[in-house]
Amino acid sequence: MADKIFRVNMSDLSTTVEPVPAAWMGLGGRGLTSTVVATEVTPTCHPLGRHNKLVIAPGLLSGTQAANSGRLSCGAKSPLTGTIKEANAGGSSAQMLAKLGVKALIIEGKPHDESKWYSLHVTRDGVTISEESEVIGLGNFATVKTLNQRLGEKVGVITIGPAGEMRMSAANISIKDPDSHLRSGGRGGLGAVMGSKKVKFISIEPTNEQVQIADPEAFKTANRLFAKALVDNPISKALAQYGTNVLVNIINESGGLPTRNFTKGQFEGHEAISGETMHDTIVARGGKPKHNCHQGCVIQCSQVYNDLNGNYKTSGFEYETIWALGADCCIDNLDHLADADSLMDDIGLDSIETPVAFAVAMEAGVLKFGDGAELCRILKEDVAKGTPLGRIIGNGAASVGKAFGITRVPVVKGQAIPAYDPRAIKGIGITYATSTQGADHTMGYTIATNILGVGGKLDPLSKEGQVELSRNLQIATAAIDSTGMCLFIAFAALDDATCLPALIDMINARFGISLTADDVTNLGKTILKTEHGFNLAAGFTNKDDRLPEFFAEEPIAPHNVVWDISDAAIDSFWDF
Amino acid sequence: MADKIFRVNMSDLSTTVEPVPAAWMGLGGRGLTSTVVATEVTPTCHPLGRHNKLVIAPGLLSGTQAANSGRLSCGAKSPLTGTIKEANAGGSSAQMLAKLGVKALIIEGKPHDESKWYSLHVTRDGVTISEESEVIGLGNFATVKTLNQRLGEKVGVITIGPAGEMRMSAANISIKDPDSHLRSGGRGGLGAVMGSKKVKFISIEPTNEQVQIADPEAFKTANRLFAKALVDNPISKALAQYGTNVLVNIINESGGLPTRNFTKGQFEGHEAISGETMHDTIVARGGKPKHNCHQGCVIQCSQVYNDLNGNYKTSGFEYETIWALGADCCIDNLDHLADADSLMDDIGLDSIETPVAFAVAMEAGVLKFGDGAELCRILKEDVAKGTPLGRIIGNGAASVGKAFGITRVPVVKGQAIPAYDPRAIKGIGITYATSTQGADHTMGYTIATNILGVGGKLDPLSKEGQVELSRNLQIATAAIDSTGMCLFIAFAALDDATCLPALIDMINARFGISLTADDVTNLGKTILKTEHGFNLAAGFTNKDDRLPEFFAEEPIAPHNVVWDISDAAIDSFWDF
Repeated sequence: MADKIFRVNMSDLSTTVEPVPAAWMGLGGRGLTSTVVATEVTPTCHPLGRHNKLVIAPGLLSGTQAANSGRLSCGAKSPLTGTIKEANAGGSSAQMLAKLGVKALIIEGKPHDESKWYSLHVTRDGVTISEESEVIGLGNFATVKTLNQRLGEKVGVITIGPAGEMRMSAANISIKDPDSHLRSGGRGGLGAVMGSKKVKFISIEPTNEQVQIADPEAFKTANRLFAKALVDNPISKALAQYGTNVLVNIINESGGLPTRNFTKGQFEGHEAISGETMHDTIVARGGKPKHNCHQGCVIQCSQVYNDLNGNYKTSGFEYETIWALGADCCIDNLDHLADADSLMDDIGLDSIETPVAFAVAMEAGVLKFGDGAELCRILKEDVAKGTPLGRIIGNGAASVGKAFGITRVPVVKGQAIPAYDPRAIKGIGITYATSTQGADHTMGYTIATNILGVGGKLDPLSKEGQVELSRNLQIATAAIDSTGMCLFIAFAALDDATCLPALIDMINARFGISLTADDVTNLGKTILKTEHGFNLAAGFTNKDDRLPEFFAEEPIAPHNVVWDISDAAIDSFWDF
Repeated sequence: MADKIFRVNMSDLSTTVEPVPAAWMGLGGRGLTSTVVATEVTPTCHPLGRHNKLVIAPGLLSGTQAANSGRLSCGAKSPLTGTIKEANAGGSSAQMLAKLGVKALIIEGKPHDESKWYSLHVTRDGVTISEESEVIGLGNFATVKTLNQRLGEKVGVITIGPAGEMRMSAANISIKDPDSHLRSGGRGGLGAVMGSKKVKFISIEPTNEQVQIADPEAFKTANRLFAKALVDNPISKALAQYGTNVLVNIINESGGLPTRNFTKGQFEGHEAISGETMHDTIVARGGKPKHNCHQGCVIQCSQVYNDLNGNYKTSGFEYETIWALGADCCIDNLDHLADADSLMDDIGLDSIETPVAFAVAMEAGVLKFGDGAELCRILKEDVAKGTPLGRIIGNGAASVGKAFGITRVPVVKGQAIPAYDPRAIKGIGITYATSTQGADHTMGYTIATNILGVGGKLDPLSKEGQVELSRNLQIATAAIDSTGMCLFIAFAALDDATCLPALIDMINARFGISLTADDVTNLGKTILKTEHGFNLAAGFTNKDDRLPEFFAEEPIAPHNVVWDISDAAIDSFWDF
């Protein structure tokens, strides 16, 4: 049975199952969410109003046996940035939705009576809307636990925490993983969009059905090659050993680890929070240094981090989170970081935006740099409960800067800059500036080439070549984000000649088509231009493609460099 | 001695007195502040950063005997809107600065050490910078009292309250009036810009000198005609009797009085807060129903409102403030409104932005509609003290909407919409949408023609002719705002054939020039285009010239009309 568009109208509580329009047929993941948003959402609409739509789409390879194909894309106009937005995460839902024949789930409108909450249940036949009260106000963990009891352990769950219910701009969308823990579609406040629709959670019926593969043998062969390329890659191995947190020491060494609200490029406490220290701590406490966030992942960069007593504390304890809480907020204690990570997962908060917001609050004197206990207390007592301070922080770094009149606010288009200082690693600054979705390293991860020597080498301190590097990576990323693949396949794709052809072969075998590498590149370009077009229609201009002025004026130690790439060079990004 | 530019650099605490560049020679007030900002301020700069400049300028006729010429213009890039901004107010400072030969005072840079505060003292010889501690943290009233004791009752004072010190986006700049009370350069958060420069107040040395008049006889003759036109005008008379608050009953009757956070067009409690009730209350308590905000005002729309015990409570108790606290927040008790007005003056808050922010907070459930006592408590305990809730409110209506995820937020370019609903009075909607400074009725007061029958008549509910009306008024207003004249001369200027020629004659007699009416119109056009050019360079587009979407979707009683002027019609505003 062909995939369908599952559509839910929360204004009149109606649902439909529709054929996939021809123009959307070859799209999946980000390519599809961005196309639907650009086609159906008024660019100037209020992100929390009835004209915005939340689009949830598995990727082109979701539901297949393809290695690392478990990412689910969520898209909408972002309440944080005002731009188009796609956030993707692992967990089980992408595979489950794909197996039910869901090409995309589109949630539109909003109830007139704002006092009621709803849930959606997805089966092969369509979506059922139910009024919901039991889990309203609950954190994500309790919500998943309750739903497991109500609907069975195998049910798929996409949910929002209290942050999403309160429509905070740093609210994420959380996706249940195989261990009934959570993976986060973190950036851009899409949880607030889901909350504005009054949908607390989406449950997905388990199925034994499989997605149809046009050429199963060719698929299997390609997948074998693909998976081998992934596991053989040295970066994959480092990720398996230390998680993404392998980067703390590497980026600190580069001088590009933003520290103390972006005033320094190295953190004195880096050893205490490094991937190496984390690995040893996990092993000593009987956790899992290696762990997958979705079935079929062969990299396994996740981990299970236990507390001092050997009890589960958190998983998916990422470099970005650890950097932001650690270096940026100067908290050199992994247990405080793990507490905060778990709290943010439970409240349903972007674990980049929120700690960067805390660092700005620390500069404003709301709490002290390094005070991890107070940070956790504010998460629990203020953010989770929606006090005024909690709302200021839960709306992100720009919100904190505005509230307290702070000018050193590391955001682009209102979204917090992640874990790489653009003064010391200039390629990533181009990505932050030009990304269609606000500052986001995953949009074009130049760290690969600037620091890790993947896909060639390019001096991070040089101005030359950074625009082209970011452009090429942003185009490739847009395409990868459409497949349902984890972005970490990019390391192998950049350096192993067998990887990308195998990926394309899998897509071709899945659908019985014959895409070329050029087709994939063109897909990436089209997605970027679609997203950019939406933003222009929403009122964005090249003036928004700029880093905050302090980057050009405050040299960062140890290299004592400023952001010095010209506006004209940045604007040339779009010359393709 | 020729007028000079007085320049203060707060980065290195240096001051200069400079000749006036030829291009600025014919400019004053808003024409000068906007030209200086457009010339010297990087449009994309952070409004609270060192690249913004605060420009303070008397008008072309300031310091002369011209009736109603006491307005002082303050300009900068606004932290509330991100646009160029001019706010003007009465009081004594415009006349005092003009008599000292100050064409404009430009405050630029900002101190590196943010722990210190400063004051500026202006004499004919220049500006002296002093470190200040005594009045830091004090409200405006205590600040003025302290400075009167320190520097004498006659000293001129321009100051910020705690809101400005805390860099809140609704912070105004307050100007001492002849009674040592305060007049507010209210809109756009210019007090936050002054606070970001770490300047608590500017004191102005009294002088017996007079501004030079090129042709004193011609000036005197013209001023006599001009003053007669003002006092003979029926609107002037109504303003003298009931203050600006004469409008409550008139606008309520029109169905365009925004009520309960812009959900209705009439307020049940309108009689209790009307100009008529206020007048009777003032008379019964021994206040002054008629009072001037600066020397030489012949309209006297201000008043002195006493409390129940006959003691002074507030003055300059304006329609906008009374509407916003009264109808928009549903508080039908003039004494609560007077308390809140006095508190806002003391804290240094825009008394439009702040109550509209409260109304959004009421919709969010932070306090109840109608609860004036709680509103005053929050002003005192939260806003004045800078608690998180106080900062959310002190940063304006858009800030409250963002914090609490509310979509019915009546702002344009981030600035609160004032006291006329654009659905029921469509001309003012064009002004809100196209104004270079965010929603602001004073930029092109179509109420004159739409409601009051001044300058002709134009049905407020019709779509026809509103763009042209707003354009003509915006051009005229930009010119009037350059003269130092109170905007209330416009009623006479529109309907009395002797008024405008007399005004032009005064300018010509003052400077020995021969401007025509066309020259004045061209000045207005040039100012608008200069301001618009700054905004475009800052990244604004026609997408920002829009009202919030709820105006097009929620019909407002009693007329049950929506905002229905097309985007193309709005954009045609700039066809001149």
